[in-house]
Amino acid sequence: MITTDILIIGAGPTGLFAVFEAGLLKLKCHIIDALPQPGGQLAELYPKKPIFDIPGYPSVMAGELVDNLMEQIKQFQPGFTLNERAETIDKLEDGTFIVTTNKGTKHHAKAVAIAGGLGSFEPRKPLIENIADYEEKGVEYFVKKPEIFEGKRVVIAGGGDSALDWSIFLSNVASEVTLVHRRNEFRGALDSVEKVQELKKLGKINLITPAEVKAIKGEEKVESLVIEREGEEMIVETDYFIPLFGLTPKLGPIADWGLEIEKNAIKVNNALDYQTNIEGVYAIGDVNTYPGKLKLILCGFHEATLMCQSVYNRLNPGKKYVLKYTTVSGVNGFDGTRKEAEKQVVKAIE
Amino acid sequence: MITTDILIIGAGPTGLFAVFEAGLLKLKCHIIDALPQPGGQLAELYPKKPIFDIPGYPSVMAGELVDNLMEQIKQFQPGFTLNERAETIDKLEDGTFIVTTNKGTKHHAKAVAIAGGLGSFEPRKPLIENIADYEEKGVEYFVKKPEIFEGKRVVIAGGGDSALDWSIFLSNVASEVTLVHRRNEFRGALDSVEKVQELKKLGKINLITPAEVKAIKGEEKVESLVIEREGEEMIVETDYFIPLFGLTPKLGPIADWGLEIEKNAIKVNNALDYQTNIEGVYAIGDVNTYPGKLKLILCGFHEATLMCQSVYNRLNPGKKYVLKYTTVSGVNGFDGTRKEAEKQVVKAIE
Ligand SMILES: Cc1cc2nc3c(=O)[nH]c(=O)nc-3n(C[C@H](O)[C@H](O)[C@H](O)COP(=O)(O)OP(=O)(O)OC[C@H]3O[C@@H](n4cnc5c(N)ncnc54)[C@H](O)[C@@H]3O)c2cc1C
Ligand SMILES: Cc1cc2nc3c(=O)[nH]c(=O)nc-3n(C[C@H](O)[C@H](O)[C@H](O)COP(=O)(O)OP(=O)(O)OC[C@H]3O[C@@H](n4cnc5c(N)ncnc54)[C@H](O)[C@@H]3O)c2cc1C
Repeated sequence: MITTDILIIGAGPTGLFAVFEAGLLKLKCHIIDALPQPGGQLAELYPKKPIFDIPGYPSVMAGELVDNLMEQIKQFQPGFTLNERAETIDKLEDGTFIVTTNKGTKHHAKAVAIAGGLGSFEPRKPLIENIADYEEKGVEYFVKKPEIFEGKRVVIAGGGDSALDWSIFLSNVASEVTLVHRRNEFRGALDSVEKVQELKKLGKINLITPAEVKAIKGEEKVESLVIEREGEEMIVETDYFIPLFGLTPKLGPIADWGLEIEKNAIKVNNALDYQTNIEGVYAIGDVNTYPGKLKLILCGFHEATLMCQSVYNRLNPGKKYVLKYTTVSGVNGFDGTRKEAEKQVVKAIE
Repeated sequence: MITTDILIIGAGPTGLFAVFEAGLLKLKCHIIDALPQPGGQLAELYPKKPIFDIPGYPSVMAGELVDNLMEQIKQFQPGFTLNERAETIDKLEDGTFIVTTNKGTKHHAKAVAIAGGLGSFEPRKPLIENIADYEEKGVEYFVKKPEIFEGKRVVIAGGGDSALDWSIFLSNVASEVTLVHRRNEFRGALDSVEKVQELKKLGKINLITPAEVKAIKGEEKVESLVIEREGEEMIVETDYFIPLFGLTPKLGPIADWGLEIEKNAIKVNNALDYQTNIEGVYAIGDVNTYPGKLKLILCGFHEATLMCQSVYNRLNPGKKYVLKYTTVSGVNGFDGTRKEAEKQVVKAIE
């Protein structure tokens, strides 16, 4: 059982920044995310694109913003349960919560902050009848650990940035990379498209277009794929099949937690502290809704901050909290580090 | 008469960022501030100190944050009325406003956003009977235009960072710099204190401590000061007297605008859009109060953003606004510039 003060569901920018604000209040956080990496939409959907409306950043790459947030929170040593989806919540008699993931990992927390964005990112699966039988037996919807593909034959399907970028990356890792796409045209960053073109010419990527994977064959695990190109079927032997058709966010199991849902988002008590109808459960960032709500990163930061204050007040009833400026009070990490402004001196001039 | 869409009172981080969010909605802004420079508390009180809780910045100097905000908003060409205090507001029949400063400058706007922080910064004045008579006649509470001191004799009074830093700066500009402080000890950054020590040794700064300026003499303008040191009076001839005893923020004239005031702050309709009891007048950042309010920079950013949306809706009734992501839609400056993410290509691989 993992125990923490605030359990955060979702490692997007909102969930990450909450760790910092909680840390200032000496509250520990643990984050669950269905994706293999932190960063939410920024890391999964547009890591290499610039954002122009982060206050104080005339421009910042989404991936860089995530890196900076990770750097900003590291002294508060957040725990991470990645690659797992928060599935059920139980409120105990003492007002604390147990949240269990789809893999059975249990988390015990004093408060729960749902920072689930548009929902947990689930891969769009190709319509192949028995594909579920081969999941984790050669079918992978994410490249979580590239090293498992070392010296293996890999077939990637898809026509976007992920398919292009992983084909390029794995061409240096796998023994054989085949890229299948139902059109001749790929949609992605110009340099990715050009790189794949080059690797194809060098014989490092096999390209099969316009084509579709129609069936998977194999006894215990994936052994070969049936691919149809312009009406003709061919068999391609492979160890792995990686369909990269994008992800769709699904509010998923959280929709059944007894929370008030409106327009696929969780209703919160209008901007007071972003608490839901279940006391001790908060919803912050893209996942919540209230009058005037804007689904922007900078709004998630504010909501995370007010949420942490509310949790603090809930856990320390009657204790008067005095807001401290980081500039004035510094930041004390849970790892023993301290950040602080240079002190003024009081010194005579002779 | 200056005309604009949103008149912002206060050029602190909140007011500055509002210009950006308004710009995304094609609304023009003009900012009034009593201080000679933008940046509010950050520029005036702690420009060289690091802030640790700006989301995405593990650490940023307050002055640097202000510079970045100015850079971020520059394509929206905000107008500035600096060195003037917003004094009165009049609501016209058509629902627009005229705001007049203490110097009589009039601003006509469709909406007013008060981002006045803790209030307009007013200098703490020394208790010298007739000092008001010499204001703008040799007595200066700010160093607004350093060039006016060129070749002149200057007496600075004070024992903090401003007194130290301006003494250092003006020792290269004025013909004579005298620094008067009622203690021998100065309170400031170590390198400033050491620099003044050095300049004193070089004879470039005269130091009179522990001492106080007791009286100002002169016919039309400042000609000399009576300074008392350890019970003895001396006369120091000078062209300028610059008392730098810090600034105190005063809500000031805004307190008489008919707004609901609570704990020296302006009450807003709880976090919906930060509108005050006067329709079309908003209060954002440190200057407002609502349940759960935190006086933090990042909260001001959020409030500014929701305020701009509300103004947009007010000025475009019935028009459905669809939130646009800067990453996806880019940023069109009023100066004809455009910022945008690199476009994806759709390209065949042969
Ligand atoms: C192409 C694009 C461009 C954008 N540009 C901008 C922009 O310029 N400016 C701007 O402000 N915003 C922009 N946005 C929106 C911005 O990305 C979102 O506002 C932001 O990501 C919301 O952050 P969040 O932390 O609330 O949620 P998310 O970033 O969506 O993160 C939520 C995380 O929660 C996880 N999760 C959800 N449910 C569960 C569960 N049950 N178990 C485990 N994990 C779960 C998800 O896997 C996800 O990783 C853009 C979005 C897109 C798609
Ligand atoms: C030493 C110190 C350290 C701090 N550290 C942090 C920190 O680490 N993190 C954090 O988030 N916050 C910190 N703060 C607080 C932070 O500075 C404020 O939250 C922030 O400045 C508020 O921004 P604002 O734009 O709302 O108002 P302000 O920065 O106060 O700006 C308001 C401006 O409005 C002007 N004004 C007011 N009334 C009028 C008028 N009638 N006419 C013309 N001009 C007017 C003022 O002159 C001023 O320039 C700190 C504050 C101090 C003093």
